[in-house]
Amino acid sequence: MTIALHTVFDSQNDRIIWDVGHQSYVHKILTGRYEKMNTLRQWGGLSGFPKSNESIHDAFDTGHSSTSISAAVGLALARDLDNLDHSVVAVIGDGALTGGMAFEALNHAGHEALDLIVILNDNEMSISKNVGALSAYLSKLRTEPTYSRTKGEIESVLHKVPLIGDKIARCASWMKEKIKYLMVPGIIFEELGFTYIGPVDGHSVPELTGVLNNSRHMKGPILLHAITQKGRGYEPASNNPSLFHGIGPFDIKTGSIISGQSKSYTEIFGEFMMQQAKVDPRIVGITAAMTSGTGLAKFSKEYPERFYDVGICEQHAVTMAAGMAKAGMRPIVAIYSTFLQRAFDQILHDVALQNLPVVFAVDRAGLVGEDGPTHHGLFDMAFLRIIPNLTIMSPSDENELLDMLFTSISINGPSVIRYPRGAGPGNAINEVRKIIELGSARVLREGKDLAVLAIGRGVNLGFDACLILEKRGIDAALIDARFVKPIDSDLINDLPKEFEKIVLIEEGCLAGGFSSACLEKWQESSYFPNVLRLGVPDAFIEHGNTNQLLANMNLDAEGIVDAIIKHWDDFNRPKQTLELLSVRKN
Amino acid sequence: MTIALHTVFDSQNDRIIWDVGHQSYVHKILTGRYEKMNTLRQWGGLSGFPKSNESIHDAFDTGHSSTSISAAVGLALARDLDNLDHSVVAVIGDGALTGGMAFEALNHAGHEALDLIVILNDNEMSISKNVGALSAYLSKLRTEPTYSRTKGEIESVLHKVPLIGDKIARCASWMKEKIKYLMVPGIIFEELGFTYIGPVDGHSVPELTGVLNNSRHMKGPILLHAITQKGRGYEPASNNPSLFHGIGPFDIKTGSIISGQSKSYTEIFGEFMMQQAKVDPRIVGITAAMTSGTGLAKFSKEYPERFYDVGICEQHAVTMAAGMAKAGMRPIVAIYSTFLQRAFDQILHDVALQNLPVVFAVDRAGLVGEDGPTHHGLFDMAFLRIIPNLTIMSPSDENELLDMLFTSISINGPSVIRYPRGAGPGNAINEVRKIIELGSARVLREGKDLAVLAIGRGVNLGFDACLILEKRGIDAALIDARFVKPIDSDLINDLPKEFEKIVLIEEGCLAGGFSSACLEKWQESSYFPNVLRLGVPDAFIEHGNTNQLLANMNLDAEGIVDAIIKHWDDFNRPKQTLELLSVRKN
Repeated sequence: MTIALHTVFDSQNDRIIWDVGHQSYVHKILTGRYEKMNTLRQWGGLSGFPKSNESIHDAFDTGHSSTSISAAVGLALARDLDNLDHSVVAVIGDGALTGGMAFEALNHAGHEALDLIVILNDNEMSISKNVGALSAYLSKLRTEPTYSRTKGEIESVLHKVPLIGDKIARCASWMKEKIKYLMVPGIIFEELGFTYIGPVDGHSVPELTGVLNNSRHMKGPILLHAITQKGRGYEPASNNPSLFHGIGPFDIKTGSIISGQSKSYTEIFGEFMMQQAKVDPRIVGITAAMTSGTGLAKFSKEYPERFYDVGICEQHAVTMAAGMAKAGMRPIVAIYSTFLQRAFDQILHDVALQNLPVVFAVDRAGLVGEDGPTHHGLFDMAFLRIIPNLTIMSPSDENELLDMLFTSISINGPSVIRYPRGAGPGNAINEVRKIIELGSARVLREGKDLAVLAIGRGVNLGFDACLILEKRGIDAALIDARFVKPIDSDLINDLPKEFEKIVLIEEGCLAGGFSSACLEKWQESSYFPNVLRLGVPDAFIEHGNTNQLLANMNLDAEGIVDAIIKHWDDFNRPKQTLELLSVRKN
Repeated sequence: MTIALHTVFDSQNDRIIWDVGHQSYVHKILTGRYEKMNTLRQWGGLSGFPKSNESIHDAFDTGHSSTSISAAVGLALARDLDNLDHSVVAVIGDGALTGGMAFEALNHAGHEALDLIVILNDNEMSISKNVGALSAYLSKLRTEPTYSRTKGEIESVLHKVPLIGDKIARCASWMKEKIKYLMVPGIIFEELGFTYIGPVDGHSVPELTGVLNNSRHMKGPILLHAITQKGRGYEPASNNPSLFHGIGPFDIKTGSIISGQSKSYTEIFGEFMMQQAKVDPRIVGITAAMTSGTGLAKFSKEYPERFYDVGICEQHAVTMAAGMAKAGMRPIVAIYSTFLQRAFDQILHDVALQNLPVVFAVDRAGLVGEDGPTHHGLFDMAFLRIIPNLTIMSPSDENELLDMLFTSISINGPSVIRYPRGAGPGNAINEVRKIIELGSARVLREGKDLAVLAIGRGVNLGFDACLILEKRGIDAALIDARFVKPIDSDLINDLPKEFEKIVLIEEGCLAGGFSSACLEKWQESSYFPNVLRLGVPDAFIEHGNTNQLLANMNLDAEGIVDAIIKHWDDFNRPKQTLELLSVRKN
């Protein structure tokens, strides 16, 4: 498909927008980036998504789903205002098409009768098998005889029906419509103002080139339905497309994954769901096209009647969960941090305002690594903590994740548990679950020279930093805040009385985030300590290995130690007697 | 329609969800709230929206558009899990149906084949005339002969077609489909898995009662298309439905508005758009079904080719604007603060990440009064300031709004101007516009005893408070921060050196908001002043007159003065010599 696109269109002049962008690799190869493909998704290398600052051939940056048609509408409207005549093409998968904003854009493009080509790259799946009535509709279309209207022959026939008098004209118009229904597939798109062309073989360069060459000169919006196969040409991928949607290192011959990681937070969440569903019939699991990614694959098989994959529809997922909670269920909505941004209004307006007990299992909270700025989950603590009624927790190890999930179910209101991508520290899992007192931090390590108050993976980074500090003769206490909201007010108020120096660590944006909540508490008590805040600065963070990115931001253990030493003169000067402070006990 | 609904359904047992909720007044009257209708939208009185804590008959709280089908899906799924058998009915307007999340919910409901009735209350307009291809489609359906499938007669005929052998079966199935196209209207809904019934007269109780009685026992999701007229029964309203969508006091005989307010921020924004579009061909105006509410009615008439009302589609509006900005336009997107929550991800991911020069004119930022918690614009400063690359301003008078708009167009990146509902202080408008230096506050009043640093309407409230303080012998300086981002670091760092007492005032949530940004600056400089933060507490604010609500939160001038006197002991004790501080000059 990409070869056909580049045969027909000139990507320096015409605009091609790749929805989500995973599908842009061949485009990158064809537009001068072949030599750099081995740097893909690495720090300083090519991005895994289209990036206009990487190449002039990338017309619009993408990453999240379902944005391409909106962007294409904007580009096409601007083209028309400027009286230019290049083509605008959006390439969108059948999964992305289920996102509400794609529908909003189709509806608007049809209304404006814009010259615009939307290529529906239909491989019958997005990340996992597609859901929704639209998906069933597309399957039906797949079996229609191929129908190309490139010469507009039917329209011209229909337009020749003589119209005499108002009543007859209406009748003739009605007849035309009905005849069209008989002859033309893709009626949903036709009714939205698009000319539907297809289905065509998305792997046939001659067929696609022919259709695109005809389409580019047609007036009005066109939906070209191309049938493709995910993983085409590489058997291990076509046999297991869900696994290969996004994959780490693998053996290229066999397709088997090269791994050695300990259990991920995602897996632990999935196991919790299995255990809890057994004893609590109110538990239902909801995901937005991320069954496997959020660890719910097993749950979906074991409890199909209590599992809902709604497609790439975060907004609907959240408000549907609100409806279920209203009716007495305990819905657990598993969505990645970055995609939860799509449902900000629904969390606030449909869940929190009614104080409904929906649990949000927010995976990939923090840096995600190779996917980069479109996918890092760095904003959730800041945008969620401003919402009244919400409880927000973040674990620093496996047991804490389980206890937080267990706690969340007991809360009579909405709650969020945010946890990072990948594995925790690898602690052995306790059999017995406990409910954590709301808003209670826990002291992990006592110390006298300074206190480190951290949250989530920040605690693990802080722990490593404490060990290095110890070697340098600095005795640091470490506290796991556990709650972003309600925050442990007593501890935060007491901390400056016991420590002259306080370090706050979070793997999230410093603007408005966890440490900002701490400052608010100290302001309330009018007792400001000398604080060092460590977290993500006010900028978008590029792609690369997570450890590399942490190091770049001085958020790895060494970076944290350096920042502490630099911030306080005491630690730079020759060792002197530090005032002995009482040590806070748990 | 409401009478028919209550005739057929038992709203204590069945669940009726009113999308947006403006249409729930008759429902409120019929469910025991007639006596209280004269308290509607007043402090302590009935809400203008459904509220489950107001009546058991209100199944789900609404306010924002397009949520009802998702909530209904959740309620229906929970019902089925519990093996209950009540009906679930969502009543949604044709405007709300254009919202992407309504489509997400239709797609999912069809897939689940849920027993669910969606009543499409089609009055051919939401707040203003509807847009979009779907709207044209609905218009077409309106003229179809009424078609009721309550006895499923066609299905039964079609099912009798004999199926012999696989190929013939496929062919027969294809034929059935095509015959269905000929006979059944509402194909879009049918293809999404709904049974379409209609169009029916939404004002005929007997017709609706009959159809609903039949529908309630049908299996699977039903879309009942009811044609209604906005303002039916009250001539001034039916003649001017846009005006009467949401209206203040008016003469009930003539329908003319009782007003006396000076010029609103909304009007001033509208005038700016007219003037600027004349000199700058890159200016385009975008709104999401709020042409009149955002002050763009005149602009839409004068510059129809540069104006886009995309319907209730905030997500699409923002990403489309990103596309236009990418192509060199200067799109100005006018959306209410509360509705901008829907586009949080698009602002972050599609606009800010690419640093595109989209201007957001954020109206109704702050308390909106009678619409209450679903509509107050109290979160925007907090959720927007965490987004990198964004410039955020808020004016305290008419000239500042104009200068900020003028400034925003010169910024080579995204910017936000947030301003409150209603009129400003009424300052005369200067002819000449000026560009405001980014991140520069301005001193409005010098003083020696304390400094008030405020933003937006907080400045006006602070000004009144200063006058009262003056009478009490307290000399307060007043500074208009103007920028939430970038914040005036120099001024904020200097302030504690000149003033022992600092008061921060904002009409927005204290958690993560403007004053929180100030605390972050002081933390950076390790120089914490004694600060009093005044703003909206961490709770949802009820409906009522805005002045009443401000007074309730101690955010009116008297409340601010009381809070200051209470916070600092100095001001309580008999007047003593206060340390004379130098006064900061502008």
